[in-house]
Amino acid sequence: MRILKLSLLVLLITASASSQSLEQRAQAEKDVLAVITRQAEAWNRGDIEGFMQGYWRSDKLAFVSGDNVTRGWQATLDRYKKSYDSRAKMGTLTFSGLEVNVLSKNNAVVIGSWSLAREKDNPHGKFTLIFQKMKDGWKIIHDHTS
Amino acid sequence: MRILKLSLLVLLITASASSQSLEQRAQAEKDVLAVITRQAEAWNRGDIEGFMQGYWRSDKLAFVSGDNVTRGWQATLDRYKKSYDSRAKMGTLTFSGLEVNVLSKNNAVVIGSWSLAREKDNPHGKFTLIFQKMKDGWKIIHDHTS
Repeated sequence: MRILKLSLLVLLITASASSQSLEQRAQAEKDVLAVITRQAEAWNRGDIEGFMQGYWRSDKLAFVSGDNVTRGWQATLDRYKKSYDSRAKMGTLTFSGLEVNVLSKNNAVVIGSWSLAREKDNPHGKFTLIFQKMKDGWKIIHDHTS
Repeated sequence: MRILKLSLLVLLITASASSQSLEQRAQAEKDVLAVITRQAEAWNRGDIEGFMQGYWRSDKLAFVSGDNVTRGWQATLDRYKKSYDSRAKMGTLTFSGLEVNVLSKNNAVVIGSWSLAREKDNPHGKFTLIFQKMKDGWKIIHDHTS
């Protein structure tokens, strides 16, 4: 009888560790979308450093764009600052068509569209963001933008 | 004493469910790279359907390229067949600079470069592949190519 109880306990623990409740997934989805919303808000007040808070502050952060890979938080910040060195170039950022796929307790993927409304043009494209849950919340560990 | 034993057991089980041994990670890395190698081999014998075996056979497969998102295995196959309707257009595919990041027991990310050697041109770019371990092995569930 004790063995049976133990087996049940083992089953329960492995189940809870390997899958997530609907509530947990919904919470992860909400938390990840909140990070993206805060990023757009920071961008639209001209705050690139604020925008960068959504990214993992690590040398391992990967930012893929076109045929380039930028490695690390600082290099990604520098790249953004160089490409968007005026408020006019930053324009107004809008994210749309966001789809969140919660892979596991600690990882999620978001795909969506980005668009910059600027005086003279309207660049736009798609992105894939891989999020990881860190001690200080969900952070983008990998960004592929095209 | 029985409580202590139980606690230790619980600790062991949760640890093994939430993290992976170095051996497990190395195996995942090897398995994922084998899928990619088989894909390149299939491509280079003109076998697009064989190439597509690396992808999750699901309507939820996401294939992001430039400013487009293709949904589903069949639509992705159709897109490849349309874009590469001759052996000359397929050229010779090479993957390079592959980096695998095993996120968890069931998910991994690969970034790398792709290049097509063709008679008249040499298109190339980067990709991000999100893999998931399925019953029939590791499959790409999300591809972002630029």
